[in-house]
Amino acid sequence: MFPNKKIQSLVGSKIQVEMKGNNHILEGILSSADEYLNIHLIDTVEVEDEKRIKSLGSVVLRGNNIILVNPL
Amino acid sequence: MFPNKKIQSLVGSKIQVEMKGNNHILEGILSSADEYLNIHLIDTVEVEDEKRIKSLGSVVLRGNNIILVNPL
Amino acid sequence: MFPNKKIQSLVGSKIQVEMKGNNHILEGILSSADEYLNIHLIDTVEVEDEKRIKSLGSVVLRGNNIILVNPL
Amino acid sequence: MFPNKKIQSLVGSKIQVEMKGNNHILEGILSSADEYLNIHLIDTVEVEDEKRIKSLGSVVLRGNNIILVNPL
Amino acid sequence: MFPNKKIQSLVGSKIQVEMKGNNHILEGILSSADEYLNIHLIDTVEVEDEKRIKSLGSVVLRGNNIILVNPL
Amino acid sequence: MFPNKKIQSLVGSKIQVEMKGNNHILEGILSSADEYLNIHLIDTVEVEDEKRIKSLGSVVLRGNNIILVNPL
Repeated sequence: MFPNKKIQSLVGSKIQVEMKGNNHILEGILSSADEYLNIHLIDTVEVEDEKRIKSLGSVVLRGNNIILVNPL
Repeated sequence: MFPNKKIQSLVGSKIQVEMKGNNHILEGILSSADEYLNIHLIDTVEVEDEKRIKSLGSVVLRGNNIILVNPL
Repeated sequence: MFPNKKIQSLVGSKIQVEMKGNNHILEGILSSADEYLNIHLIDTVEVEDEKRIKSLGSVVLRGNNIILVNPL
Repeated sequence: MFPNKKIQSLVGSKIQVEMKGNNHILEGILSSADEYLNIHLIDTVEVEDEKRIKSLGSVVLRGNNIILVNPL
Repeated sequence: MFPNKKIQSLVGSKIQVEMKGNNHILEGILSSADEYLNIHLIDTVEVEDEKRIKSLGSVVLRGNNIILVNPL
Repeated sequence: MFPNKKIQSLVGSKIQVEMKGNNHILEGILSSADEYLNIHLIDTVEVEDEKRIKSLGSVVLRGNNIILVNPL
């Protein structure tokens, strides 16, 4: 499955996203993604050492700063 | 809601933006955003450890250096 | 062989990918890649000092954050 | 005002630009900017801890490495 | 000679490439390069402090993460 | 003068270029530049603490990894 198709197939599911910048990890429900892999995530939490350290709610992530998307 | 639509829906509202570079956090009123997620923010303050450390007023942020946008 | 052709020739094969962000190394089967070098990898494991440290399963990697792709 | 319009409105004015790379801060007169936010700055000085540490004269800044533009 | 023409003129020759990420240096034969400076390198070795530390064989390098290309 | 025009006006002249990656500084004669600010530099030397530390000859620099171009 093509990378973008794979992402679209995850809409409505819980995903983990690794971002650039202090390499933090976010988990949330994928609300939408566009062709640049910009992502709208809801019920988002920041995760460190596999513990939830902060609740962020609804966030928009810039696609070019996404390292990796992982379905949970 | 698509990522860009989500951002447009926040025009006029207070948002938090995490930037690349020393990973600083900015808070301000979203004045405008374009399709690249370049952002014009007003009444901007820089935030560290959840404290306001510097008032920046009107700033333009380059979209590709935005990690995350969070409505407040 | 052109870079993108080279990548397409690796679909179905095991590859190693070096990513930006803490420069981690991923290994997995290349499921698909698009023109931006966005990659869908399956049976993915994270590798450090040539040891497998974490199993990630199916992941999508953002092309611009890929440093290097190496067939295994 | 849209981000690019905001930048255009600053041509001829003194601005502060925060760059990626050792996060240095530059101040100068905005001579021109294009649609990618590439910037031509004149009478440029590098600033650290709010002190001018180096005079650079005329410089061209690559848009994608600009974190933030701030009118002075 | 234009940057891309210069690169094309090096196909079949040995080059050194400095990459982002731990700023490592790769040396190899330039097999091909596209308009984005994505590069297919063969007989690739990783170099540190001017010593060859690892043999990588055939690799694809993402253009935007190339700092510098140097003919050897 | 627009940023790209400014760069074109420097062809044949000595320039200093600050790159991403260990923020090294290169000096050389600007042989050519394209619309992405990819640069072909000749008689290039690497500079640290204002001393020439290494002679590189002819190099191609990827535009998106250029922080700043400064005529000398």
